[in-house]
Amino acid sequence: MSLKDLRISEAEHKTRIEKIRGEMRGSRIGALYLTNPTRIMYTTGFSYISTERPLALVIPMDEPLFFMAPQLEYDHIRGECTLADEVYTYPDYPGKAHPIRIFARQMAERGLGSSVIATDSFDGAAGGFGYRGPSLRDLMSKARFVDGRDIVDSMRLVKSKQEIRLLRESARWCEVAHDILLENVRSGVHDALIAVRSSHEALARMLKRLGQRYVQFKIALSPVVVGFRGQVGRGSAIPHAVYSKEKIRRGDVLVSEAGVEVGGYTSELERTVIVGKPGSKVVRYFTAMLKAQDAALHEFRPGIACSKVDDVARQSIEASGLAEAIRHHTGHGIGLDGHEPPWLDPGDRTIMRQGMVFSCEPGLYVPGYAGFRHSDTIEITGKGMDLITHYPRGLEELTI
Amino acid sequence: MSLKDLRISEAEHKTRIEKIRGEMRGSRIGALYLTNPTRIMYTTGFSYISTERPLALVIPMDEPLFFMAPQLEYDHIRGECTLADEVYTYPDYPGKAHPIRIFARQMAERGLGSSVIATDSFDGAAGGFGYRGPSLRDLMSKARFVDGRDIVDSMRLVKSKQEIRLLRESARWCEVAHDILLENVRSGVHDALIAVRSSHEALARMLKRLGQRYVQFKIALSPVVVGFRGQVGRGSAIPHAVYSKEKIRRGDVLVSEAGVEVGGYTSELERTVIVGKPGSKVVRYFTAMLKAQDAALHEFRPGIACSKVDDVARQSIEASGLAEAIRHHTGHGIGLDGHEPPWLDPGDRTIMRQGMVFSCEPGLYVPGYAGFRHSDTIEITGKGMDLITHYPRGLEELTI
Repeated sequence: MSLKDLRISEAEHKTRIEKIRGEMRGSRIGALYLTNPTRIMYTTGFSYISTERPLALVIPMDEPLFFMAPQLEYDHIRGECTLADEVYTYPDYPGKAHPIRIFARQMAERGLGSSVIATDSFDGAAGGFGYRGPSLRDLMSKARFVDGRDIVDSMRLVKSKQEIRLLRESARWCEVAHDILLENVRSGVHDALIAVRSSHEALARMLKRLGQRYVQFKIALSPVVVGFRGQVGRGSAIPHAVYSKEKIRRGDVLVSEAGVEVGGYTSELERTVIVGKPGSKVVRYFTAMLKAQDAALHEFRPGIACSKVDDVARQSIEASGLAEAIRHHTGHGIGLDGHEPPWLDPGDRTIMRQGMVFSCEPGLYVPGYAGFRHSDTIEITGKGMDLITHYPRGLEELTI
Repeated sequence: MSLKDLRISEAEHKTRIEKIRGEMRGSRIGALYLTNPTRIMYTTGFSYISTERPLALVIPMDEPLFFMAPQLEYDHIRGECTLADEVYTYPDYPGKAHPIRIFARQMAERGLGSSVIATDSFDGAAGGFGYRGPSLRDLMSKARFVDGRDIVDSMRLVKSKQEIRLLRESARWCEVAHDILLENVRSGVHDALIAVRSSHEALARMLKRLGQRYVQFKIALSPVVVGFRGQVGRGSAIPHAVYSKEKIRRGDVLVSEAGVEVGGYTSELERTVIVGKPGSKVVRYFTAMLKAQDAALHEFRPGIACSKVDDVARQSIEASGLAEAIRHHTGHGIGLDGHEPPWLDPGDRTIMRQGMVFSCEPGLYVPGYAGFRHSDTIEITGKGMDLITHYPRGLEELTI
């Protein structure tokens, strides 16, 4: 892998922008106005901390793209994003003149005052942290605003070769991180400590190998996250646990998670781990979970509906007599965001296509006792699917 | 400190809900419908991972509050939140029936179908991760929807004694974490590694002292975050840098950040740190920054406008002849969110009141060279202000 392989190339960003313009042309849209940081990153490669301060990327149909941003992001955008023609700034939020009023004037000055504007926010701002402001749509009364979210999001459904390469590089380090995690598990230690320690060790190993080729894009203490996130003992029965009130004990069922950001993309690797010899109840649930994941993994292929994979996993769990232990659907798309459409859910009839990437993670949960879930990341290929994450899945290998 | 002191008490949550109902009564609102995780946590103490799956807390005027949530949060809410009367669930998102349609029916069944509903989302959902859905407002055509964000947010402007106690406990561990960070700084090491290692050491020390009294509320690899976030050498000139492309070198100016979540609340402690003997240019900028922070710190008191503190910091920087190095305003409110209103900004005339908490962080930035910023967290008292963060601020003490 060469340096440029650890991030999306400028050429691919230019191709994405051309595709966006193609969509815009077809719908007679004059400009696409984006405020969501993931969409802005997908389009330009520029990543930033989204706060109360409005920041917008504007892609006019016939002119170079430009940013409107708080002053504190000016040097950042200039240093990181070669695709922007201009970066217009305002002093700060809320400001003597509200940033969105300044943006409305700027749009008019750029000749977009009476255009059809597709946007992901009629307010004109991402709107975090107690943000308040006038709506851009109200301020630009001569323009016509339409929902522009799908212009970008529909492109994100199918991953490019570069995106899949980044997800595979991510998975490789998820596997290393997960090995380190399992080496660090100890009874009597809080899982949060094991998580941060293991993340540090895995990050050290990754930076040693990749060096300056590696650049973290998304804001986080660590681009390597490996741990149990409170899914410890009976806490493992809470799929979205945040923190464990107890230390790890012998006999606990643990559910792990490993995610490593590479070029903005993060694969998902999760395992059910048993501390000490598993009893018969553990074996029963673990086996049923594994069967359901196997069934789902065998179903992925181009041409079938996303709901079908969920259906197969559910049927497998029902056949094991454990339907009451289901708490969620079978998985989700994954890429720049940790969860993305399409969904492996009864309500999603999206047809799978080559290049789509999914988590596959049917789970079983028994309140007050334990939870059982593996998650792997897979890619839809021309004929079927390939695993992106490669990691032992059997009970014996995951008993420590 | 007793166990309950490391989180907001149930009694205080009940008081908050009563205050909310008082506001609702005055405005003839039938129910408050909340989707934002910070507002839900402020109101109930329940914290969760907000995703594409809609989750709502409803506070009817005259009946117990209830949740509407995905099935995977049922046991979590039941285990963590004693204030909820009922938790209505849907299988998953997007589902055969869309969750928001299920929510609309549930609202009608609870007798709220033609009420005045105050909400923080007319869509009825927080809307992350590619979420799409019908608008709750459209589905409940007999109800009248009004913006309800300020019902909660206006209460959050002034912190209670419990909130300030948690911010002080947070600050105490920020100081410990920052000491550890400075001990770990080495030339030739990437700052991300120093950050994760130091966060681990500080977390270990905190958990050893606080044990089971400590519970992490907000989702994060570590509730202790200490590091430089890429603000290393010329990267320190980018206030919202994400990652450094270079390792720490002798002569670098670094800008640190320390934040420790306690009971959901996080204080902010940041320092400008010099690696090796500072030259005259460093001394000039550091001194001007410190003077500006001193000027701002002396200005805080009840009864003055937030803009005044910003004004004083700005004047100090102008007097130092460095106005061109300003990139942002002087600070922000802080509490459950890392940035909260009011803002220390020319555009915010909010009058300071006892119990408001602010970051104080005027900064100076020289593109391609370095950035200079300290941030301290302060509380407005009856007569003036008190520092919440206590940490050395002088050049000599911060030269390593």
